[in-house]
Amino acid sequence: MNLIFRDATETDLPELVEMLEDDFLAKGREDLSIPLNPAYLEFLERVSKNPDIRLIVAELAHELVGMLQITFIPQFHYIGSWTCELECVRVSSQRRGQGIGGKMLHWSIEQARKRGCRSVQLTTNLSRIDAIRFYEKEGFAYSHAGMKFSIQ
Amino acid sequence: MNLIFRDATETDLPELVEMLEDDFLAKGREDLSIPLNPAYLEFLERVSKNPDIRLIVAELAHELVGMLQITFIPQFHYIGSWTCELECVRVSSQRRGQGIGGKMLHWSIEQARKRGCRSVQLTTNLSRIDAIRFYEKEGFAYSHAGMKFSIQ
Repeated sequence: MNLIFRDATETDLPELVEMLEDDFLAKGREDLSIPLNPAYLEFLERVSKNPDIRLIVAELAHELVGMLQITFIPQFHYIGSWTCELECVRVSSQRRGQGIGGKMLHWSIEQARKRGCRSVQLTTNLSRIDAIRFYEKEGFAYSHAGMKFSIQ
Repeated sequence: MNLIFRDATETDLPELVEMLEDDFLAKGREDLSIPLNPAYLEFLERVSKNPDIRLIVAELAHELVGMLQITFIPQFHYIGSWTCELECVRVSSQRRGQGIGGKMLHWSIEQARKRGCRSVQLTTNLSRIDAIRFYEKEGFAYSHAGMKFSIQ
């Protein structure tokens, strides 16, 4: 499988928003309007200037099959180490079960290694039982409680 | 209680490293050598140039009683929202049980609100039962599994 990873461009955004929304937990979170909500474009413009944040798409024969956001974070602890945080990890619903998610993780871990990170971390909703199992299979430990405070 | 919050300076660092190390889980993670390991200074220099990352100390009558790292992260999902991530949250072991941790959280939530974040998030080791209970009492939901992959 010849999966290509690259930074997202403006023309990818509508499809990426749809990919985010196409999920049992995320439904209703995004704005599917066209023209696209300018907040998505602002995000892309912001990260284009920040080498520590990347919005990545996985492409298979010119088809967008996955996405993820990678954020490299310097941390004071562990003697000023870096961590690599993953967000918005999605595989297109038509393409699940084909090993794409695993390849996306391996690629991300490789980017983190190149950047000298001591860890890759993510949180996933407790109701995503299959996702937790998948990450464990890929070498992630469910060692922490992910705590969220919503600001109204 | 007149707690003062401010950004850490170079002279605070040795005491902050000791505060991190003074913990049943973190013991052995840090470098207590003096002169200080330059990686801590590099971290401070890096964040001094980055408005999205702050290393904060809580001071009570000129005594360092707490610390935390705040990282503001732009996210593609939730229509390009921001989250505020907390790390290295510590209250000095001599000062626990006095409400300092709660005040540190309230202050952090206020900073996140001012920056327009939709959430404050953190992960805490599953063995920190008291910490999980504390965060829940302060309005955080244990809604996510915190998954970590260690890079050798």
